[in-house]
Amino acid sequence: MNHVEVKVVGVVESSLTDVNLAPRQADESAPEASLVFHEEVREALRNIRPGDKLIVLTWLHRTQRNVLRVHPRGDPTREPEGVFSTRSPHRPNPIGLHQVEVTDVDGLRLRVRSLEAVDGTPIIDLKPVLADEVDRR
Amino acid sequence: MNHVEVKVVGVVESSLTDVNLAPRQADESAPEASLVFHEEVREALRNIRPGDKLIVLTWLHRTQRNVLRVHPRGDPTREPEGVFSTRSPHRPNPIGLHQVEVTDVDGLRLRVRSLEAVDGTPIIDLKPVLADEVDRR
Repeated sequence: MNHVEVKVVGVVESSLTDVNLAPRQADESAPEASLVFHEEVREALRNIRPGDKLIVLTWLHRTQRNVLRVHPRGDPTREPEGVFSTRSPHRPNPIGLHQVEVTDVDGLRLRVRSLEAVDGTPIIDLKPVLADEVDRR
Repeated sequence: MNHVEVKVVGVVESSLTDVNLAPRQADESAPEASLVFHEEVREALRNIRPGDKLIVLTWLHRTQRNVLRVHPRGDPTREPEGVFSTRSPHRPNPIGLHQVEVTDVDGLRLRVRSLEAVDGTPIIDLKPVLADEVDRR
């Protein structure tokens, strides 16, 4: 397979340090966290404000990339499924998608609510949530 | 900045060939398209069925990666914004997020509704849409 090279643009700072204790999705009691960006992308952060709903793309670096099938939610009693039909972090490209709300902006540092990524997780992109993707619970 | 290496796991086949004519988002009249995966990830596709709502992650390979600010929707009369507060394809890591519905599954080929990526766009991941991300229009 061909490859493309992705730049690490920042890093997650979080009280979550144990990947085994991290909630699997943000609605399962994930803590506040900070997104700390590299100086090289400062200009890309312009216009981000508290209250913004964003999608953070991370590189889940502590995962296994050769896994193609997993037991749903790690439950060995359930039939294994192809990883493309799951949100398992173990997959050919361990890209995490996290919907967050910005609570504070301080230069290269954004504070966000409910992020399930562990401390030190590389950030690879940040995008606004589109209207039709907004959580309407 | 550090880098990570992302595997290309498949490619988009579409009647869209001109990146300048591609709709900016899928709700703007994007056509049906096929996602054609590489043999190496066949097992990861298990359990994907017609009707599934998925998020396709693509590598928007025809874009400029050194752009940090853009005019919203390419309109030069609007103030430039940092690319992390836009969905501009021009950004440090041009990763596209596309919400699609599967209409047909044939081995390594998935047919999907409304994909705004052009023919030949590399695919880097595929994930199910979570309940709170579902388009509820």
